[in-house]
Amino acid sequence: MAYDVAALEKLIEQFQKIPSIGRKTAQRMAFHVLDLTDEQAKEFADAIIDAHTKIHNCSLCHNLTENELCPVCASPNRDRRTVCVVEEPKDVLAMERMREFNGVYHVLHGVISPMNGIGPDQLTIKSLVERAASGVVSEIIMATNPTIEGDTTAMYISKLIKPFGVKVTRLAYGIPVGADIEYADDVTLMRALSGRSEL
Amino acid sequence: MAYDVAALEKLIEQFQKIPSIGRKTAQRMAFHVLDLTDEQAKEFADAIIDAHTKIHNCSLCHNLTENELCPVCASPNRDRRTVCVVEEPKDVLAMERMREFNGVYHVLHGVISPMNGIGPDQLTIKSLVERAASGVVSEIIMATNPTIEGDTTAMYISKLIKPFGVKVTRLAYGIPVGADIEYADDVTLMRALSGRSEL
Repeated sequence: MAYDVAALEKLIEQFQKIPSIGRKTAQRMAFHVLDLTDEQAKEFADAIIDAHTKIHNCSLCHNLTENELCPVCASPNRDRRTVCVVEEPKDVLAMERMREFNGVYHVLHGVISPMNGIGPDQLTIKSLVERAASGVVSEIIMATNPTIEGDTTAMYISKLIKPFGVKVTRLAYGIPVGADIEYADDVTLMRALSGRSEL
Repeated sequence: MAYDVAALEKLIEQFQKIPSIGRKTAQRMAFHVLDLTDEQAKEFADAIIDAHTKIHNCSLCHNLTENELCPVCASPNRDRRTVCVVEEPKDVLAMERMREFNGVYHVLHGVISPMNGIGPDQLTIKSLVERAASGVVSEIIMATNPTIEGDTTAMYISKLIKPFGVKVTRLAYGIPVGADIEYADDVTLMRALSGRSEL
């Protein structure tokens, strides 16, 4: 392109590296940055560096935190007997948004996926087993995604944990609230049928 | 929310300030930043600061540049007799992507919009008139958006410039290539009809 401003191009490239952000969105985002005041731009840049240097994994549940323990593990109001196992920190955000769950979490940071070369050792499964063996935990809720990998991981973990006498459960599958049965896919409908409850 | 990591929240907020970026996209973007290496995060932050400090407006056409003149104005291969007037720097990017236009640009940085309190003085119209009066320019192509404000601005500028004996043209309106006439709106269809050309 004849028109090429190196600093702008670099910024667009940075935004474009974000998954699901295409060229045009990246461009729009870069122009937004140019419209900021110097101070606002500095705040933005600092937020990136800050998040990067301050945030690390909770030593207990491996969720993101700025301190030794994450806010959930550190809270005296949470029920330590129920552990919800999720794939990623963003799943914790989704669970917390619901304001229904009062237990604690365990973040796997992935799922078992031989196709991508990810085995149990790359996940935080060992520390989950240690938590289960400690005697504090009475129920582990597997909230991995309803995919083949998520299901496999849930199955694998439940086999490891059951010997400690801990109850292992799985989130219910079914038709999402507000959706049309007409448009539900076969697998979802099958799971909804087999998981039916009495009225 | 019980789960609140301040540094993460701040970063999400920064992304959310970008127009058209909602909470969920901002979250996904923030998690992308956390997945970067320290070096990559620094690169990202630097790109923001760099773009901000290095980029300013071209002294001739008011397009974005790192130097005194933008790459287009500085190029010896561009035809200085034809000036394409656009609203925003991103419109220049769109024009350049086409690789068809070999003239130079003039960026207004907005349109006349009394509703938003923007008059001719807040735009770069004065310097455009100076360019038209210099005697170098033979044609000015108004490439403002086909909105009421864009049309008004084009009309206003053409009235200012015509006394200098400069030809003022406007981009053609019509049905976009690949679109269905069936779905074209009335105004576009009307413009396409009145702008019809002989085959």
